[in-house]
Amino acid sequence: MGDFRKESDLLGVLEVPADAYYGVQTQRAIDNFKISGQLLSSYPEFIRGLAFVKMAAAKTNYELGLLDESLYFKIVETCHEIIAGRFHEQFPVDMIQGGAGTSINMNANEVIANRVLEKMGKDKGQYEFCSPNDHINLSQSTNDAYPTAIKMGLLQMNAVLVEKLQKIVGAFRDKGNEFRGIIKMGRTQLQDAVPMTLGQEFEAFAATLEEDISKLNNNAGLFVEVNMGATAIGTGLNAPVGYAALCAKNLAEITGYPVVSAPDLVEATPDTGSYVIYSSALKRLAVKLSKICNDLRLLSSGPRAGLFEINLPPMQPGSSIMPGKVNPVIPEVVNQVCFKVIGNDLTVTFAAEAGQLQLNVMEPVLSHAIMENIHFLCNALDTLREKCIVGITANKEVCLNMVKHSIGIVTALNPYIGYKQSTAIAKESLETGKSVYDLVLEKGMLSQEKLDEILDPSHMLKPHNK
Amino acid sequence: MGDFRKESDLLGVLEVPADAYYGVQTQRAIDNFKISGQLLSSYPEFIRGLAFVKMAAAKTNYELGLLDESLYFKIVETCHEIIAGRFHEQFPVDMIQGGAGTSINMNANEVIANRVLEKMGKDKGQYEFCSPNDHINLSQSTNDAYPTAIKMGLLQMNAVLVEKLQKIVGAFRDKGNEFRGIIKMGRTQLQDAVPMTLGQEFEAFAATLEEDISKLNNNAGLFVEVNMGATAIGTGLNAPVGYAALCAKNLAEITGYPVVSAPDLVEATPDTGSYVIYSSALKRLAVKLSKICNDLRLLSSGPRAGLFEINLPPMQPGSSIMPGKVNPVIPEVVNQVCFKVIGNDLTVTFAAEAGQLQLNVMEPVLSHAIMENIHFLCNALDTLREKCIVGITANKEVCLNMVKHSIGIVTALNPYIGYKQSTAIAKESLETGKSVYDLVLEKGMLSQEKLDEILDPSHMLKPHNK
Amino acid sequence: MGDFRKESDLLGVLEVPADAYYGVQTQRAIDNFKISGQLLSSYPEFIRGLAFVKMAAAKTNYELGLLDESLYFKIVETCHEIIAGRFHEQFPVDMIQGGAGTSINMNANEVIANRVLEKMGKDKGQYEFCSPNDHINLSQSTNDAYPTAIKMGLLQMNAVLVEKLQKIVGAFRDKGNEFRGIIKMGRTQLQDAVPMTLGQEFEAFAATLEEDISKLNNNAGLFVEVNMGATAIGTGLNAPVGYAALCAKNLAEITGYPVVSAPDLVEATPDTGSYVIYSSALKRLAVKLSKICNDLRLLSSGPRAGLFEINLPPMQPGSSIMPGKVNPVIPEVVNQVCFKVIGNDLTVTFAAEAGQLQLNVMEPVLSHAIMENIHFLCNALDTLREKCIVGITANKEVCLNMVKHSIGIVTALNPYIGYKQSTAIAKESLETGKSVYDLVLEKGMLSQEKLDEILDPSHMLKPHNK
Amino acid sequence: MGDFRKESDLLGVLEVPADAYYGVQTQRAIDNFKISGQLLSSYPEFIRGLAFVKMAAAKTNYELGLLDESLYFKIVETCHEIIAGRFHEQFPVDMIQGGAGTSINMNANEVIANRVLEKMGKDKGQYEFCSPNDHINLSQSTNDAYPTAIKMGLLQMNAVLVEKLQKIVGAFRDKGNEFRGIIKMGRTQLQDAVPMTLGQEFEAFAATLEEDISKLNNNAGLFVEVNMGATAIGTGLNAPVGYAALCAKNLAEITGYPVVSAPDLVEATPDTGSYVIYSSALKRLAVKLSKICNDLRLLSSGPRAGLFEINLPPMQPGSSIMPGKVNPVIPEVVNQVCFKVIGNDLTVTFAAEAGQLQLNVMEPVLSHAIMENIHFLCNALDTLREKCIVGITANKEVCLNMVKHSIGIVTALNPYIGYKQSTAIAKESLETGKSVYDLVLEKGMLSQEKLDEILDPSHMLKPHNK
Repeated sequence: MGDFRKESDLLGVLEVPADAYYGVQTQRAIDNFKISGQLLSSYPEFIRGLAFVKMAAAKTNYELGLLDESLYFKIVETCHEIIAGRFHEQFPVDMIQGGAGTSINMNANEVIANRVLEKMGKDKGQYEFCSPNDHINLSQSTNDAYPTAIKMGLLQMNAVLVEKLQKIVGAFRDKGNEFRGIIKMGRTQLQDAVPMTLGQEFEAFAATLEEDISKLNNNAGLFVEVNMGATAIGTGLNAPVGYAALCAKNLAEITGYPVVSAPDLVEATPDTGSYVIYSSALKRLAVKLSKICNDLRLLSSGPRAGLFEINLPPMQPGSSIMPGKVNPVIPEVVNQVCFKVIGNDLTVTFAAEAGQLQLNVMEPVLSHAIMENIHFLCNALDTLREKCIVGITANKEVCLNMVKHSIGIVTALNPYIGYKQSTAIAKESLETGKSVYDLVLEKGMLSQEKLDEILDPSHMLKPHNK
Repeated sequence: MGDFRKESDLLGVLEVPADAYYGVQTQRAIDNFKISGQLLSSYPEFIRGLAFVKMAAAKTNYELGLLDESLYFKIVETCHEIIAGRFHEQFPVDMIQGGAGTSINMNANEVIANRVLEKMGKDKGQYEFCSPNDHINLSQSTNDAYPTAIKMGLLQMNAVLVEKLQKIVGAFRDKGNEFRGIIKMGRTQLQDAVPMTLGQEFEAFAATLEEDISKLNNNAGLFVEVNMGATAIGTGLNAPVGYAALCAKNLAEITGYPVVSAPDLVEATPDTGSYVIYSSALKRLAVKLSKICNDLRLLSSGPRAGLFEINLPPMQPGSSIMPGKVNPVIPEVVNQVCFKVIGNDLTVTFAAEAGQLQLNVMEPVLSHAIMENIHFLCNALDTLREKCIVGITANKEVCLNMVKHSIGIVTALNPYIGYKQSTAIAKESLETGKSVYDLVLEKGMLSQEKLDEILDPSHMLKPHNK
Repeated sequence: MGDFRKESDLLGVLEVPADAYYGVQTQRAIDNFKISGQLLSSYPEFIRGLAFVKMAAAKTNYELGLLDESLYFKIVETCHEIIAGRFHEQFPVDMIQGGAGTSINMNANEVIANRVLEKMGKDKGQYEFCSPNDHINLSQSTNDAYPTAIKMGLLQMNAVLVEKLQKIVGAFRDKGNEFRGIIKMGRTQLQDAVPMTLGQEFEAFAATLEEDISKLNNNAGLFVEVNMGATAIGTGLNAPVGYAALCAKNLAEITGYPVVSAPDLVEATPDTGSYVIYSSALKRLAVKLSKICNDLRLLSSGPRAGLFEINLPPMQPGSSIMPGKVNPVIPEVVNQVCFKVIGNDLTVTFAAEAGQLQLNVMEPVLSHAIMENIHFLCNALDTLREKCIVGITANKEVCLNMVKHSIGIVTALNPYIGYKQSTAIAKESLETGKSVYDLVLEKGMLSQEKLDEILDPSHMLKPHNK
Repeated sequence: MGDFRKESDLLGVLEVPADAYYGVQTQRAIDNFKISGQLLSSYPEFIRGLAFVKMAAAKTNYELGLLDESLYFKIVETCHEIIAGRFHEQFPVDMIQGGAGTSINMNANEVIANRVLEKMGKDKGQYEFCSPNDHINLSQSTNDAYPTAIKMGLLQMNAVLVEKLQKIVGAFRDKGNEFRGIIKMGRTQLQDAVPMTLGQEFEAFAATLEEDISKLNNNAGLFVEVNMGATAIGTGLNAPVGYAALCAKNLAEITGYPVVSAPDLVEATPDTGSYVIYSSALKRLAVKLSKICNDLRLLSSGPRAGLFEINLPPMQPGSSIMPGKVNPVIPEVVNQVCFKVIGNDLTVTFAAEAGQLQLNVMEPVLSHAIMENIHFLCNALDTLREKCIVGITANKEVCLNMVKHSIGIVTALNPYIGYKQSTAIAKESLETGKSVYDLVLEKGMLSQEKLDEILDPSHMLKPHNK
């Protein structure tokens, strides 16, 4: 027997590693769900979320007279240990699992119970002194404790993501500033349009990502509404009167987040709306990032047969056959992360739609998909900033030359000679290769002085009066 | 010549129907884009959006001294006519088109110009007196006027959707109230859980949809930020100083929406973030609606071999072969609309990701997908409410009987005899067919009096103290 | 009363337009499903599919002695009329509907029954002489007749699509041939790679689309397996012995398709696997088309600040503000169709996943999404071919100049001086602006004669021995 | 220096662990791509694919006289070692990476080169004797070697998946056989339809999955077409004449797969069509599996307030609060895997659409998404079979009782009394609670003897003549 202890549940007796803090139900989950190999133990914010929830529940039970002080103190102590990072390896269940999170909730209940038993001087598994179900899970169900823990985890993860987003916004803004004097052709529909500065282009990257900071925070803000006290289906069966509100208040104090109790617990229990819209906000960020990376790859295309307006810092030899080739590998990998994020968002959509009656049993894959997305986006943002954005340089001459030879500057003549005549000039320029400038002069449409003023690219960068 | 007039543009001369208010560029679009057969003329809110924008631009140009009063008045008058519903048939371009909306913008410019010419006593096509480009499109580009018109259109459409959503919330709430005395089994993971009322279930439907009212409004709120004055790429070339802010102010007055000018017009011009997240909010609504319809179909399954807790009003004979069969056809069609909405949201995602450099050229399909979604959801919400929700009745006896025979009520014993003993009772009940009530009594675990109190289903509907 | 006749069904009496061939159940569907406004009457192949099925069923019933000859002949005659295009306006039900297609099946049953009644000299609605259910739907259920009709419709639609695909393959191939002498830089990761011909590039477009002809045909080939004789759930209740096989045989004769009876009718009835994979094949085509259009837009970018290797035929003035701008509007609209196709494929996925037990009730939206996709793709293929591909011209000088100045040609030196030395040359070329040719000579690595041979771009277009 | 050696490339000198078989370019990839944490080393089939490709290339180069025999033998020996599972830990690059697979190709080139050097008695990094680029990558580019290796990997993985699929088909078939005598109600649209056997239902599960065996194999069959000899962009630059065909032949011999050379290598190099459609076939399998799991969960719902026709083997206590509850956790986890598969298929779609010009640079995420899907599906199929299907039992009495009380059996009367009269009987039965049997007798519509025969459920399971 030596290395194992025996525990039992509804289904009978099962061996658990003797030194494991987790117990029989976690062991069943390990055996049942060999699916993704991606384990709860790799998601520290989620584990902390579980500890927050269990601590808040214990405090509430204690304050309502359902838990004695000694046990309460030991539970709190254990939760603090978990929050500090101890025992994370004791959460070995697969993130993709059946049972609507019961295995994860019971994993937390068992680890805490056995650690408390240890503090009481008892052996692991002596649940008559401290039971995963009757004490740690007291006044709770998986159906309230588990989604609440996910939400506490996501709030932490969102904060990390937003910080990385702020940093890359800063990096783009710095480049916007650095490149503010570089005049280039703007392009619409990939066709030459009118002049702008490279600085405006990079500043726009900063601005568009910056908008997503508040968007992410607002949508993550929905996670502060929790259903603790709902128990199994939102009716609060087996939770004492006043538990829901008090537990929310305690969870707020413990986490520092403005946690509140959902107004309709029967609604809140199966509802996955907050996940769906938060995942959509991640998708929106991915869409924007992907567009930016597409642009960076276009702008750095070349060196001789592309746009070649900017240089990305070389990160690795680009080709196993083409010597000297350097590729935009960092934007490329970020594009791919974005495609993964969009795919995971679809997984979230399917999982959310599959809720039935009083529960959504697909929350494990739903939360895993969101957490994977945040994790990948965090890595992608840091990689993009550190290994690409900060090292970008501009090919000033290339940029300016394209403006000088462009036909698109004819647009600035509209207010002076009208759209129709401007069109004729543009057409002739394209067909003959003559410059717009020369053609206008040739036809005597405007004085050279006026023309010099109108066609000065630096005058085209912002609104002007005629 | 008779039935046609000739107009010309960059590409040459083209015949246009003599009595058409639209002109050569609209005609090219009709010829070029025979794609979906779904025409701008079917989207009145969008056409009104175009008229709002053109009116605001004209007012701004007038106030800044670029347009004379007489022309300005005629443009305004024409826009009012369009808003009132005249000339909608003059917008025959396909909603799915290339050119980033140029055809739609020019369609509006041409219709307005020709109507103004008519008011001036001129012939259609005499653009030297009032030009689609130089007068109606003055200080504008498709790249600012077109997305702004889309946004004004979506704000109107969102208001209609929200109104219909409010009505269905009311209908669900009425049923929640009507069914508040009907006790039934709650189910998690499709397995019997613990008792609740049918009223709580319907009230939860109301509550979950109600949340989406503010969610939709908040996200539609992003549409008030417009890029008028950006002209081609956000630099404002050919727009006079002060135009952007004044145009936003004028548009706000005209529409009543709190329109503001985007802080970074170079960013705002290619950005599709507001569409992405608003489309996500529509998707979220679809996910919720689909889940509700799945539930309605489950709850009304039967009549003899299903749950049969509720009856949906019969809408049509259910089968061409099975006499007397009545099917849940209304929830079924709503499910299908939801799948269409989710598909269109993916179209939006693809279109948004495909933006390049200073423009997103995929806005036509993007806006069409969103508008189709709103249109379908409006129809689905009304259909679901009128033809299903308001006529639902409950099978009270069926509901109660399932509670009486359930094992799940054993949950209420946890606080008294603990999870482990309760488990044993449940297991024995399932295996022997004996009721939980009888087993507890038989084993003398609790007095009959106490047991009666604990197992009274009506006591299980909300939190209780022990 | 005049304009209406009264008909009745399970739900009671309803007024139907007096001259309508459709009857009470169609009328209920019109009233119940005001959803998309896209009506069955716009899908002639589908209506023909219904007529094929009803004819095959009648023939089988007649041959098995269940239908008398006179009635049989009249049904056949009516089906031929429908196939010929008469009565299409008599199919006014919304394509997105609840009831798993019952309304569409009954629409067909009613139209045929009333036309037969007319031929019999009876009034419409005198179903005692010829009943939609007992005669037209004899030995059938919606659950076999409806999906079989969809499949017969899709087989016709696929044939049209494939024909258009073949035509565009031909157009690309012609261009491949036309451009076979134009040398240009190939690009990988948007960076200059090694030389190729523009002909090779266009031939590759032809080749990649050509592969999809067999892919589409193979997957459409799954539609020949039908479940006629399954009746309600695949058990064949109320179908006579031998009906399934004989009906498949008759349907094969009528349509010319190699129709066979599914080996397991219980499996075949709810199964949507053939739709899912055929829709995937449409998606694959969309992905390829979108990639090609992206390439066309890249290659034609410019005219001065882009790649400008090819010219797309101008289709409309490109901008309401930028005179002379011509945009790639045709590839743009095709990209957008592709995004719509991908979105509809997701709708198909959701609808397929939602099948339950013995039926998939979501087939209406599923089949509508596929049919819309085929319809849009047909339009997109013709538009792309006629209005873009056939008119593309090449900028031969631009193409050649980029090769001459490229560094990527250094790749050809690998076999002679090794990857490492080639890398050094490439690096120096990029940094100094000197050409690869000059640097190699300068360093005396190879004789001029040898170098001329190796670096001749026309030698780089296919494998060579050293 | 001790623990590190120095290597250099285009970008300069970098330290590599002294004992690593991989070299500088792998090290750069490790440093550059800290993205998913999912490493090539976890994909043994893919690593074997790389070894197959390198062996085939070496053999071809040797046979064409480009590689001397001694070196060739050592390369082959090394590839055999890798195939046997040695050195897998030497492939530590992240599966999601930029550079279009260059890092993975170079990882293989470096590991093989350094192992060959070891065999030659040289130090690691002495690439003048055996170079990753000039010898191992000879006549290749990442753009042909890498996708070919993916395809060889996917062929192996598909074989494993198909084997697991065959096993679960067998398990369902066994149950179909076991349950062939159990009569139950079939259901369409969740409403009672007509009788069938539980055996037919399970046999249909077997049949629908069995179809996907050939579907997967057919689509995986596309992977035998490879682009070896294409080198950088398909033109075959630096590959000797005859290389492509011979290399395909050699790869076929080495792997046993019927490998052929793509007819158009310029087309084949950027083309991702085979991935798209194979991924679609995985999605189709997921859609079917998800539908089956939905059905299993419906059929086992209860025990008192659900359908309760079957029992799934209990795998874990179902609830942390509801004693005795047993949930369908295995189907639930499989549903979630299916949602993940569908999400990954979208990632594949996005990655495929993003190909540009002569390459698709998104192949890393594309191949990773497919490989993850196969991996998850393999686990899900085994889990579903072992822990669920084989242990399912039937509740025969429950099934039969629902048939006895059903109204749907009225369908069998159609051929005798017509649809209209049958409808009236059904309606009265539902309203009064009287059985169909009694009502027909009461009204004297049919003799008792005839009625007994018609309404015997066992007569309703297949076609009958009147």
